[in-house]
Amino acid sequence: MAGPRQGEQVLPFDPGQRAVDGVTFIGRIRSPWVAGAAPRNLVQARESGQRATVQLDPAYIPALDGLEAGQPVILLYWMDKAPRNIVVQAPRHVDGTRGTFALRSPARPNPIALAVVILQEIDRDAGLLTIDAIDCHDDTPLLDIKPWKASIDVPPGWRPDG
Amino acid sequence: MAGPRQGEQVLPFDPGQRAVDGVTFIGRIRSPWVAGAAPRNLVQARESGQRATVQLDPAYIPALDGLEAGQPVILLYWMDKAPRNIVVQAPRHVDGTRGTFALRSPARPNPIALAVVILQEIDRDAGLLTIDAIDCHDDTPLLDIKPWKASIDVPPGWRPDG
Repeated sequence: MAGPRQGEQVLPFDPGQRAVDGVTFIGRIRSPWVAGAAPRNLVQARESGQRATVQLDPAYIPALDGLEAGQPVILLYWMDKAPRNIVVQAPRHVDGTRGTFALRSPARPNPIALAVVILQEIDRDAGLLTIDAIDCHDDTPLLDIKPWKASIDVPPGWRPDG
Repeated sequence: MAGPRQGEQVLPFDPGQRAVDGVTFIGRIRSPWVAGAAPRNLVQARESGQRATVQLDPAYIPALDGLEAGQPVILLYWMDKAPRNIVVQAPRHVDGTRGTFALRSPARPNPIALAVVILQEIDRDAGLLTIDAIDCHDDTPLLDIKPWKASIDVPPGWRPDG
């Protein structure tokens, strides 16, 4: 891991060493992306036209009941390679610095990433879900799948442009 | 904790006992809601007109830089009272049963809840954020704050009704 870039601020402790409860991995995200060659965000991943899959651990297959192909879902996944102690960052695509909570960077006290994706196919027997796109590396640990709901997941008053 | 309701399915193990990495708490959500009297979801919470606050741990205050009052943010929080071993649930507001991944119930293998809220005021010195609404109990542990971005957080092709 490289040292901090100009202007970055790190905590005097590692939040990972102050864990008070634990996450379990419920499966793995299989993506076309290897370290160093991943898209910068979900928009770029979608533009690539590359699908991805989710391989669920068999114990969790019954938890898929009620999900349907075509619906949007929220995936939460664990960016286990990211540093957890950076509170102010200097991302390459931003002038100057910005606080971690103003960024979607994987480097954060709890390295939980979130993507809203379209569930394209469900192979229940295999515990295998096909999704339209993802921006994380192959084999990223999965934490959760939630149905995306416009009534709660679109901020009040938001309207698309145009 | 009451036993399972009709049709519910539980795992033969507790996912909390199979933790492979840890979460740290970066602050607490202060809400008007006590156990047994919380709104059912964020829509109901918003309709109540009750605001809430987020009290951030001082170490994380620099991570707020770049957030602005008025913007929507995603809060991730830890539902530490919820059972983690239920894969098929029988919610009171649903006929029959549904898989955990088709529900926004706090009961899930990793009890991470997600709310898209409006950041109304930022008191940086105090590490105190005012938000328009939240559906969780007072003192719920906070895991993360992320900026909400329409370009990635609205599913492709989605348009509001009407």
